[in-house]
Amino acid sequence: MVNRYLTLTPLEQALSILKSSFQVPAGLEVVPITKAIGRVIAVPVYAKYSVPEASLAAMDGIAVRSADTIGASDQAPVTLERFVRVNTGNIVPPGFDAVIMIEDTWESGDQFQIRKSAPPNQHIRPACEDIREGQLVLPVGHQVRPFDIGALATYGITHVEVRSVRVGIIPTGSELVPLGVRPAPGQVVESNTIMAQVFLSSMGACCRRYPIIRDDPDLIAQALEEAVRDNDLVIISAGSSAGTRDFTAGVIRSLGELLFHGVAIRPGKPVMLGRISGKPVLGLPGYPLAAQTVLREFAAPLLESWGFAPAQRYTVMTRIFRALASDPGFDDFVPVYVGRVGTTCWGVPQSRGSGVQMATIKANGYTHVPAPLEGYEADSEIEVILTTDPARIDRTLLLSGLLDPSLEDLANLVHEKGLFLHASSFGTTGALLALRKKACHAVPASFPPGSLLPDCHFLMQNIPPEGLIFIHIAAIRTGIASRKGITLDTFDANRWVNAKRDSTARFLFDSFLSSHGLDPGRINGYRNEAGSPAAAAKAVANRIADAGICTAGTASEAGLCFMEIGQEQYGLAVHPDLLPDHKIQSLISVIRSSEFRHLISGYPGYDVASTGTIHKVSNDRTIAEVSGEIPVQGSSSL
Amino acid sequence: MVNRYLTLTPLEQALSILKSSFQVPAGLEVVPITKAIGRVIAVPVYAKYSVPEASLAAMDGIAVRSADTIGASDQAPVTLERFVRVNTGNIVPPGFDAVIMIEDTWESGDQFQIRKSAPPNQHIRPACEDIREGQLVLPVGHQVRPFDIGALATYGITHVEVRSVRVGIIPTGSELVPLGVRPAPGQVVESNTIMAQVFLSSMGACCRRYPIIRDDPDLIAQALEEAVRDNDLVIISAGSSAGTRDFTAGVIRSLGELLFHGVAIRPGKPVMLGRISGKPVLGLPGYPLAAQTVLREFAAPLLESWGFAPAQRYTVMTRIFRALASDPGFDDFVPVYVGRVGTTCWGVPQSRGSGVQMATIKANGYTHVPAPLEGYEADSEIEVILTTDPARIDRTLLLSGLLDPSLEDLANLVHEKGLFLHASSFGTTGALLALRKKACHAVPASFPPGSLLPDCHFLMQNIPPEGLIFIHIAAIRTGIASRKGITLDTFDANRWVNAKRDSTARFLFDSFLSSHGLDPGRINGYRNEAGSPAAAAKAVANRIADAGICTAGTASEAGLCFMEIGQEQYGLAVHPDLLPDHKIQSLISVIRSSEFRHLISGYPGYDVASTGTIHKVSNDRTIAEVSGEIPVQGSSSL
Repeated sequence: MVNRYLTLTPLEQALSILKSSFQVPAGLEVVPITKAIGRVIAVPVYAKYSVPEASLAAMDGIAVRSADTIGASDQAPVTLERFVRVNTGNIVPPGFDAVIMIEDTWESGDQFQIRKSAPPNQHIRPACEDIREGQLVLPVGHQVRPFDIGALATYGITHVEVRSVRVGIIPTGSELVPLGVRPAPGQVVESNTIMAQVFLSSMGACCRRYPIIRDDPDLIAQALEEAVRDNDLVIISAGSSAGTRDFTAGVIRSLGELLFHGVAIRPGKPVMLGRISGKPVLGLPGYPLAAQTVLREFAAPLLESWGFAPAQRYTVMTRIFRALASDPGFDDFVPVYVGRVGTTCWGVPQSRGSGVQMATIKANGYTHVPAPLEGYEADSEIEVILTTDPARIDRTLLLSGLLDPSLEDLANLVHEKGLFLHASSFGTTGALLALRKKACHAVPASFPPGSLLPDCHFLMQNIPPEGLIFIHIAAIRTGIASRKGITLDTFDANRWVNAKRDSTARFLFDSFLSSHGLDPGRINGYRNEAGSPAAAAKAVANRIADAGICTAGTASEAGLCFMEIGQEQYGLAVHPDLLPDHKIQSLISVIRSSEFRHLISGYPGYDVASTGTIHKVSNDRTIAEVSGEIPVQGSSSL
Repeated sequence: MVNRYLTLTPLEQALSILKSSFQVPAGLEVVPITKAIGRVIAVPVYAKYSVPEASLAAMDGIAVRSADTIGASDQAPVTLERFVRVNTGNIVPPGFDAVIMIEDTWESGDQFQIRKSAPPNQHIRPACEDIREGQLVLPVGHQVRPFDIGALATYGITHVEVRSVRVGIIPTGSELVPLGVRPAPGQVVESNTIMAQVFLSSMGACCRRYPIIRDDPDLIAQALEEAVRDNDLVIISAGSSAGTRDFTAGVIRSLGELLFHGVAIRPGKPVMLGRISGKPVLGLPGYPLAAQTVLREFAAPLLESWGFAPAQRYTVMTRIFRALASDPGFDDFVPVYVGRVGTTCWGVPQSRGSGVQMATIKANGYTHVPAPLEGYEADSEIEVILTTDPARIDRTLLLSGLLDPSLEDLANLVHEKGLFLHASSFGTTGALLALRKKACHAVPASFPPGSLLPDCHFLMQNIPPEGLIFIHIAAIRTGIASRKGITLDTFDANRWVNAKRDSTARFLFDSFLSSHGLDPGRINGYRNEAGSPAAAAKAVANRIADAGICTAGTASEAGLCFMEIGQEQYGLAVHPDLLPDHKIQSLISVIRSSEFRHLISGYPGYDVASTGTIHKVSNDRTIAEVSGEIPVQGSSSL
């Protein structure tokens, strides 16, 4: 039997079914106040006694009878005979009705002199000022914050009753191995239920993870029955698509009802909801990003409708440089990198491969494209829901361009300065256009040594009129990788994979061919472009080609022979207007640090002699070193 | 010896000393990934292997050779003989280079028919698509979020190294008792160090609380020495003012240096900072709100400068109805209740008694009035830093007026509907002015039965032109409290304490006197106004007066005799424009619920016969019941 297409339920309808098909579980848990942070109060909390119970001194000083102080002034100080020394918090003894601060008294022998009269009740905390016995401290539904704990302790409250829900989480899939076991090819670490546990626990759920169940309908049914019996909500991970081993829907149907299977969202389409013994069973898709989306868009709203507090949700309006496409009819959830460049908040939506978890790790937000929309045009403003502290937007550096492992060291070092570096892969043309509009902070790019790309006709148009600043990271050796080595006279006897058109590697290869009098037309595969240096090396290693253009590092990683054809000058192009930005200044100071230089000098084929030098690229294609002239601050002042 | 006034350091200067006087501790902790939420990465995390390690099917379906599929169409289906059934995540076997979704195939016997060709690499996840072995997953400084955990698990990472700091927290004070012990009068529960522990732990600090030290300089010195030896930061609570038993500053001086003592902030003025063996010792004031402020404005920024992540900080601009005064020269931190009324965000700054913890429990934000300002004028817009989820502002009901215990039941019940009720005490005049401006949602107020306050000349001016809506909560018995009972003929032989001028109770008393032919001029103490019914009852109980005007409930609570003089009609005044607001509708439906009626019927002297009825107050002073005419929705739809 082959399952056919899922019938997709619209998101709004699915959520309405989800929230209306189950009774609110009445679970609660008694926790000590020190463990109550973030939890939601289930039973109102009342003060056990009044605070303070008696009138207290509100200052350190002396308790006096206000009547004794009448008429005291600088000109006519009054010496008090009846007084009691009190510290803040002491009971004001009977007969005394005011406190004078110690700073306003002058000791003389056993007596105190004062120069100002004290009205009745001065500096006295009346009984019950803070709270009276039996008064409401925390109502039902209050989410406990750290500073609430101090008050609870003061009011004599040691434990509180908070909302609790039991969630059973079942991982299924014969390809899964538990965390801690290295997966063989084709296996994956069971991570979705760990994520579900951590996420739902952070909302105050009491989660129990069951052992991994292999793809067997009987075993799945047995696990589901047990989990439904012991929990208020069951989450079953994977087995939710329409494949031969996707048994979950069938098992739910056999034990209860399937309320929906397949919702018009991306990622997360194969989500399903069942009801067994009146309890909800939520089926998570196997792909991590799909599972995340279902946890966030289904499990969290269900718990919220049960009175649990979701994570705080901060949104920010961001401009997008490129259009963002979305299938109409689908609610789309897309990871976004957000950063403020100058005064504008820019967002860079990320590839939507639902297996690419790095996209959400790197992203600091996501956007929800509602079902009716086909996406957003370039330069639109879109709403982004942040997944990090909103204050970090101002500390985020957006880089778009040619990615290189050295950017990871840069990311690490700028993070130590409190900055966050988000680098997206982007063609050099598009990236320079973005830079011209100040839609990113810097463009990682490579140029041939000594000059700008002479055959890059669009580049000239895209340099801002004020010229570009280029901060040198490293000279990277580029050349020809082959399995057994290659010589000039065997060039035309091999199958080639070339670097991308308009890339510096391609320019270096063309220069090399021309300087050796070799005709590109005789190179078999000259027009085969690899997506990246690593892809070229891989093609050679896998015998799809015999020779390929790549860097020394990728060739060595793939265990290939390498013949150098030149050096790429890799670095960051920066808009001159953004140079005074403290984030750019921090970036430059990190690139110039001995720590960064030391780290990247360890990469094969990286030359750090010019690291940190700054060049200015002019409209006439000339590039001139301007180090020293540019006011680079050494500090990382934020 | 008496300590004189503290020399106050400006806040900015104090923070600069704090952040520049100590070395950053290099502590780190290895935690399992499931315990890493909110922690900050101390050592970069790299992938242990590539994900995926081999090319995998990205869909459930069949792996095929793309060349075999060329030409397939609806008109000319192709039947495939070479294929392998694959599920999502399976390795694509050698020789196959595309996957066709199962939904796009038609099974026929042992073979599959397709109606569309498959290009090479269709539905295949290439090796390393997510991450390659050794690639950076989390940089130093990254704060771990729930969904990061899934990726870490997928990449084979079971533990991470996170920043850690040891904080020793010493409570001092002979008046302190530990949590769980009921304090005698003059004693308090030691709560500041519990608050410090919870607050700093939430930033990732490893806190150790020491036992309570009594006010003895030798014991304090001994505890400090031990704590400095074992921790990176020491927090010592109380003993920081200028009283006779405030030894902390002296002890710090004897063991090291005192960097500052006294900062121009409110609350928190007596904060001190010392350095012992190169380590910071922060002295918290004893008052809870002062301690909170010092933890938030000193301890948190210090940890932040050491690389720890503070709580997210979300600000909102709010209008204030009344002026907010602040001493120039002091940085003032004031709790604020924030709610949106109609489309405007309004803030109600709260009393600044630094012992009143209920003010911060009830508040959902606070404002920082910088030192140079004298405060803000009425109707200014001020910035409020929120202490709850910003989404809750739209779920907050702001009430200003005459507070009654029944509002606590109301708060509990509306919280169950996801709404948050913030009630501030406010004179009826001012409150009605606020209501007229729609600066609050409702005004809790009391009126004499049957009519509006006839002698309340300002009320008429302050009713909105459209008239006021009055939602009845209860009729509350008001009368005369006395220790031994009172008769009409002894009225002038007693000392009285009266209700506030313009209050309903005062109106009822005047009517009572007039209907019995009694002359207010002969009532001894007629002009003595108690601040509240409870204060009047207390004055009688404490023999400051013989008779006082208060409610039946407060009289009974104080153990006094009671003679009824009439009923106050207590309820909520609402602006007619706000009636359609779903929050007001929810409030009305709660007031009308049998649960609420049942709760308040238990209060002594509360009559619930009219609870939930709605009256419209017109400009001509008439009040007419309009129940049934007003579209009250039964739901709490948010």
